Amino acid sequence: MRSPEEFSDWYQDIVEKAGLADKRYPIKGMNVWTGYGWKAMRLIDNFIRDEFDNTGHDEVCFPLLIPQNEFQKEADHIKGFGAEVYWVTHAGENKLDIPLLLRPTSETAMYPIFSLWVRSHADLPLKTYQIVNVFRYETKQTRAFIRMREIHFFEAHTCHTDFEDAEAQIREDLEIMSRLAKRLCLPYVLCKRPDWDKFAGAYYTIGIDSLMPTGRTLQMGSIHQYRDNFSKPYNITYEDENGAHVNVHQTTYGMSERILGALISIHNDEKGIILPPDVAPIQIVIVPILSKVEPEKVTARCEELSETLKKSGYRVHLDKRDLRPGNKFYDWELRGVPIRIELGARDMQNGIVTVARRDTGERVQLKNEDLLNGISANMADVQGNLFAKANSSLQDSIHPIEELTNVQPGINVMGWCGTEDCGHVIEEKTEMAVLGEPVGAELSEKKCIVCGIPTMKTIYVARTY
Amino acid sequence: MRSPEEFSDWYQDIVEKAGLADKRYPIKGMNVWTGYGWKAMRLIDNFIRDEFDNTGHDEVCFPLLIPQNEFQKEADHIKGFGAEVYWVTHAGENKLDIPLLLRPTSETAMYPIFSLWVRSHADLPLKTYQIVNVFRYETKQTRAFIRMREIHFFEAHTCHTDFEDAEAQIREDLEIMSRLAKRLCLPYVLCKRPDWDKFAGAYYTIGIDSLMPTGRTLQMGSIHQYRDNFSKPYNITYEDENGAHVNVHQTTYGMSERILGALISIHNDEKGIILPPDVAPIQIVIVPILSKVEPEKVTARCEELSETLKKSGYRVHLDKRDLRPGNKFYDWELRGVPIRIELGARDMQNGIVTVARRDTGERVQLKNEDLLNGISANMADVQGNLFAKANSSLQDSIHPIEELTNVQPGINVMGWCGTEDCGHVIEEKTEMAVLGEPVGAELSEKKCIVCGIPTMKTIYVARTY
Repeated sequence: MRSPEEFSDWYQDIVEKAGLADKRYPIKGMNVWTGYGWKAMRLIDNFIRDEFDNTGHDEVCFPLLIPQNEFQKEADHIKGFGAEVYWVTHAGENKLDIPLLLRPTSETAMYPIFSLWVRSHADLPLKTYQIVNVFRYETKQTRAFIRMREIHFFEAHTCHTDFEDAEAQIREDLEIMSRLAKRLCLPYVLCKRPDWDKFAGAYYTIGIDSLMPTGRTLQMGSIHQYRDNFSKPYNITYEDENGAHVNVHQTTYGMSERILGALISIHNDEKGIILPPDVAPIQIVIVPILSKVEPEKVTARCEELSETLKKSGYRVHLDKRDLRPGNKFYDWELRGVPIRIELGARDMQNGIVTVARRDTGERVQLKNEDLLNGISANMADVQGNLFAKANSSLQDSIHPIEELTNVQPGINVMGWCGTEDCGHVIEEKTEMAVLGEPVGAELSEKKCIVCGIPTMKTIYVARTY
Repeated sequence: MRSPEEFSDWYQDIVEKAGLADKRYPIKGMNVWTGYGWKAMRLIDNFIRDEFDNTGHDEVCFPLLIPQNEFQKEADHIKGFGAEVYWVTHAGENKLDIPLLLRPTSETAMYPIFSLWVRSHADLPLKTYQIVNVFRYETKQTRAFIRMREIHFFEAHTCHTDFEDAEAQIREDLEIMSRLAKRLCLPYVLCKRPDWDKFAGAYYTIGIDSLMPTGRTLQMGSIHQYRDNFSKPYNITYEDENGAHVNVHQTTYGMSERILGALISIHNDEKGIILPPDVAPIQIVIVPILSKVEPEKVTARCEELSETLKKSGYRVHLDKRDLRPGNKFYDWELRGVPIRIELGARDMQNGIVTVARRDTGERVQLKNEDLLNGISANMADVQGNLFAKANSSLQDSIHPIEELTNVQPGINVMGWCGTEDCGHVIEEKTEMAVLGEPVGAELSEKKCIVCGIPTMKTIYVARTY
């Protein structure tokens, strides 16, 4: 475990050193995505896109601005987001008749239009998603990728004939998350949030939490069952077989740039960050080891190697800067490039290259003829190893406890009667948050850790970001 | 030529009928990108991305909001955009100390940060771009893709050691435009805009104009030489070899969703729009011709065909709706799918499929074994034919004239002494706009069409959107 202060300092520092974001933009909580960070984010976007395209979701793009009157239709939603919205009140010299707000999330932009798109059961399910930036006037301390006022955001919105079909969508969402987590090397826990912590307007919320090295959890995303809570005020109905107008049931699935924040926080060492190969803007860096012996030939061979690897589909960078190899190693290790190739004159003569793995620091020599297979195997090993290591660290941090005084950093598991009163007692006594009931956990009889009555409910409790 | 009114009605209608955008969003000038339109736009984005990645530009993403004080640093820029910006004045319950504006373009967001990024000549050239939405409070009548208040926007921003290096960048930009235009089947003319119509803050502006079927031109993009007009107020300097601090020279290259608007306007017929293969979300639609003879086998063969074509890299849709083939033909012709495949039981027996081209309406029968080659050849033909047709229509619409009373729809070419006075006389008498001096035109001696003095300058004059 790392102390929150030490970790926070390290994190704030590495984000800039690794070239992921520039925090000097003159508005608090709004950073500049630099080339390297934006490329990593776009790779993550594309995996999300692939998953949602392959499950029959249509990518759409709704306007950023929402008229005040549309925003105010669902009462709980306003209560939840009202204090966080940015208001556009003027355009040019004119005061606007109806103030517009910057979307904090897109329910109230989309649902007036969904009410036009859905007519009959043949239009259902309606499955859409968009990847856009959202805006929340965050009052807590901001932190790159983790707590921002402009947030790179992913949101899927679906409409269904009934509650059961919406539930089936949520099961599909969970499968999608499971596949994404493997690619991103991001193990997580799923909890059904307690009622007092669900999304503003939701019937229930499933939180997707990762565990940070400080023992605190970070919500990377969430899946919401809305039932017909939004379709009633927004009048999203379809005509059923009998000609009756029925309100649709809706779900949403949201994730954000926090995925990148979690990746950096979880995969790192004293040298810097370690990017999973699927997310790395540069997967292989080639460092020529130049001496007086035929340096031009070595450079030429490195260029050839770079082309070969690019043709095999890797993202490759050949570092030709006029620096010592050691300095180059330092830079690329800091920035998390998963595989480094070193090549000097002697290696050329011997028909080999040296391959170094960022995750383990291991260096192996590969014969030229084995290079492509070797790189492919090493890349897969890095990917598998990063996931396995993070996952065992997560599993080791889940502690069943019997007494509230025994809570530890990480995730504490305990019995709970299900009442809000006992929930709040848990939160007050532990100074932690109730993440909720773990989804898919096996049920067994326990006692509520507060009131002692028998219960089948188990909850996860942790400090959170 | 089509009358502006008739064309405008057709355009407004086809945008929705073809499923490219939904105009019912409750804010004027802000539409919803529906699945089909957004996919086409994203394909265009990706070509632009490829071109800029391949020429050493870094994709970045700057915040949407700009503080008022940063925006006000370059005087001409404020004058140009001041009346068009949306102002965020409140967040939650609070009035903001410094009002924030939604970017109308990103110079004033980027340049304070560029002044931190550029230190020495080793940091130059700095080549960046971003693909984001920008906001302009447009007072003229809005029109999907062509005149919007939220605009899907592409902007490249570069910094250079001197004017000459910035000029070289502009030559590279023109090469990029030439390659893009071929892919998008969008011929264009390049004009150096007259001083009174250059971009707010620019030293000079090159407009990229396409010709619409009404004889009016549409500016699809523009390239700007800023010289050091922005680097002075934003203090973007580098240290040269002698230790002196020198202002960089800058360029920008902007394009927008108008590209899609131009595509639709130029490529269409009485059946609907015609999408160039590279931009079409669906490149091939397969329509099964079902009869009583083994319909299951026909459907199965269509599915197999769909998979084969997808594996070859095409975007394919198999239309299995319970509709007559004729209705399906109608739908997909309207929406511009470049190639249609029809397959019935008799075709299966004969080992053939029927392939219909959207651009010419031509239908040919291909043997199964020739299918992939045939599709590939037809697709290339559609692409080539669309460009050639639009290009000859553009070239035929460029008219040299000697008298202002002789202007015609399309582009009028005439001598001009270069003074603003004569320029304004031309605009008043013709009720057209001076597009500017054609870039790369051969010089020959002419007379100014207004004052009659000898001149080497030629200008293009047209009605514009």
